[in-house]
Amino acid sequence: MKVLIIGAAGMVGRKLVERIAVEPEILGGPIETLSLVDVFEPPVPTSLAAIAKPGTVDLAKPGVAEQLIADRPDLIIHLAAIVSGQAEADFDLGYAVNLDGTRWLFDAIRTEGLKEPYCPRMVFASSIAVFGAPFPESIPDDFFTTPLTSYGTQKAISELLLADYTRRGIFDGVGIRLPTICIRPGKPNAAASGFFSNILREPLSGQEAVLPVDESVRHWFASPRSAVGFFTHASTMDTSLIGPRRNLMMPGISATVGEEIAALERVAGPKAAALIKREADPTIQGIVAGWARCFDATRARELGFTAETEFDEIIRIHIEDELDGKIGG
Amino acid sequence: MKVLIIGAAGMVGRKLVERIAVEPEILGGPIETLSLVDVFEPPVPTSLAAIAKPGTVDLAKPGVAEQLIADRPDLIIHLAAIVSGQAEADFDLGYAVNLDGTRWLFDAIRTEGLKEPYCPRMVFASSIAVFGAPFPESIPDDFFTTPLTSYGTQKAISELLLADYTRRGIFDGVGIRLPTICIRPGKPNAAASGFFSNILREPLSGQEAVLPVDESVRHWFASPRSAVGFFTHASTMDTSLIGPRRNLMMPGISATVGEEIAALERVAGPKAAALIKREADPTIQGIVAGWARCFDATRARELGFTAETEFDEIIRIHIEDELDGKIGG
Repeated sequence: MKVLIIGAAGMVGRKLVERIAVEPEILGGPIETLSLVDVFEPPVPTSLAAIAKPGTVDLAKPGVAEQLIADRPDLIIHLAAIVSGQAEADFDLGYAVNLDGTRWLFDAIRTEGLKEPYCPRMVFASSIAVFGAPFPESIPDDFFTTPLTSYGTQKAISELLLADYTRRGIFDGVGIRLPTICIRPGKPNAAASGFFSNILREPLSGQEAVLPVDESVRHWFASPRSAVGFFTHASTMDTSLIGPRRNLMMPGISATVGEEIAALERVAGPKAAALIKREADPTIQGIVAGWARCFDATRARELGFTAETEFDEIIRIHIEDELDGKIGG
Repeated sequence: MKVLIIGAAGMVGRKLVERIAVEPEILGGPIETLSLVDVFEPPVPTSLAAIAKPGTVDLAKPGVAEQLIADRPDLIIHLAAIVSGQAEADFDLGYAVNLDGTRWLFDAIRTEGLKEPYCPRMVFASSIAVFGAPFPESIPDDFFTTPLTSYGTQKAISELLLADYTRRGIFDGVGIRLPTICIRPGKPNAAASGFFSNILREPLSGQEAVLPVDESVRHWFASPRSAVGFFTHASTMDTSLIGPRRNLMMPGISATVGEEIAALERVAGPKAAALIKREADPTIQGIVAGWARCFDATRARELGFTAETEFDEIIRIHIEDELDGKIGG
């Protein structure tokens, strides 16, 4: 099979490719060509060098989508996006990439299919940002999408297009609404959600981390390993079971910051937990107050998507996957 | 004030203009210019000739939106759309008009506002087609939009853009999800929903009408007069009360076909009801089975939108507004 991953240099993209390197048939069969594209050149694991075709592209440029679709990939995993803060700061860029880029990709598949029958699997990364406060305590699968950011708006629009193009037989789409990924690997960043990972990742490496909110703050999490699993499952599942409602909120763990810290203490000991410094930040507190706390995610679970069931597991996965099993840096 | 009505030659557009002719300040104050545009030249009531600027435009053509916005209207009522059946039959046309045309209009307002501060009221006609079966018996205001037509998809996307552009301060938007309008004036048409009006309008004029479904079929209705009221209220209301969720399901009556016929018999007598011929049509029965039966419409009612409370009123409005008070043709 031919596979195209758009956004292959991002965190989820890289982890997905690393997973393919370990399990070459995880996307449903042997891969003939693996096109890996992003605005930066995506890394290619040595074992995939023979089949990988890395490239740098800007999906917001006219003609790019047609080039990507020209060799008719059987499976397309679309992870590329301008992130939330940047899409809010730059109206034109966010709409150009997150809406127009996605629509051009979808339309390039339609154009290709008008030449000769073609209906690839299309797995699209959406986000909890399609929802906007106020919420019920646990958000049901049939809750409406009233985003409060341009990023969330662009993702919600792309979801609607995905469902309509699927209904029309243009492709076989699955929209994956990702929970907040935790523990996000890498360095601390300035994103408002960064602290959810920082307060675990940094202490696990012997570093201090700042907690800007109260321990009672509750949010919805899944590990990077689960995120990869969402995309491999969506790539291989029987989509006839989904029906016309093609966008699925992924399972996760609803946990408070206090529960995160208790799990850290159980897995890594009180010295690790003691590295968390409490420095209240009213701006971040205000932003986080508008975030979803819990989802039912019933449909996704029934369709075979799985995530962690306790927070300790999220921490152990980080230790295994990022720290070679060693705590303390 | 300057007013622009796009889609002014359609049924709701014409009735809205006729209402303005009778009550010249119903849109919130004296009107300086009333631009009335559509793909056909909209009719202009004599009393509005001095202020009306009728025109034929195609919103799907580049540059048209900018021309419409060039004189900076204070109020824009956007009713124009490719209808459901045509948008389903012609993929490109539906997306070009219902999505791109609407977005170009919204972007033209943004461009105008970047030159000099500008934030008009924008009232947008959406539809119950943003919802897709299966539904709960009565659909709550926070139910998700999972359209099952390209038309519904295009309306749902436009709603998301309306909310985001409003949040950004580009305009002050209100999205009006219209119930099925009943009794629709004019001739019987081939639309799957046509019979809901046909079985009342034709007998009220002494003509036979065909009922293709069972009397137990339930649907959601408002009169053309109520539809006009939705747009005049949205044009003049205090939008600060709406909050960020700018798209509102309008109130209406949930009634079965049997209740429609009983109301006809009460208002116009058994001879009128006897003009309804039952001819089951499995295709129409199948389409109608997927339609919404009832809405809560709580938010819109709380925000001052009103519709009929009993079906007899819907019939009396048709007799008053379309038949000069006379039953029987």
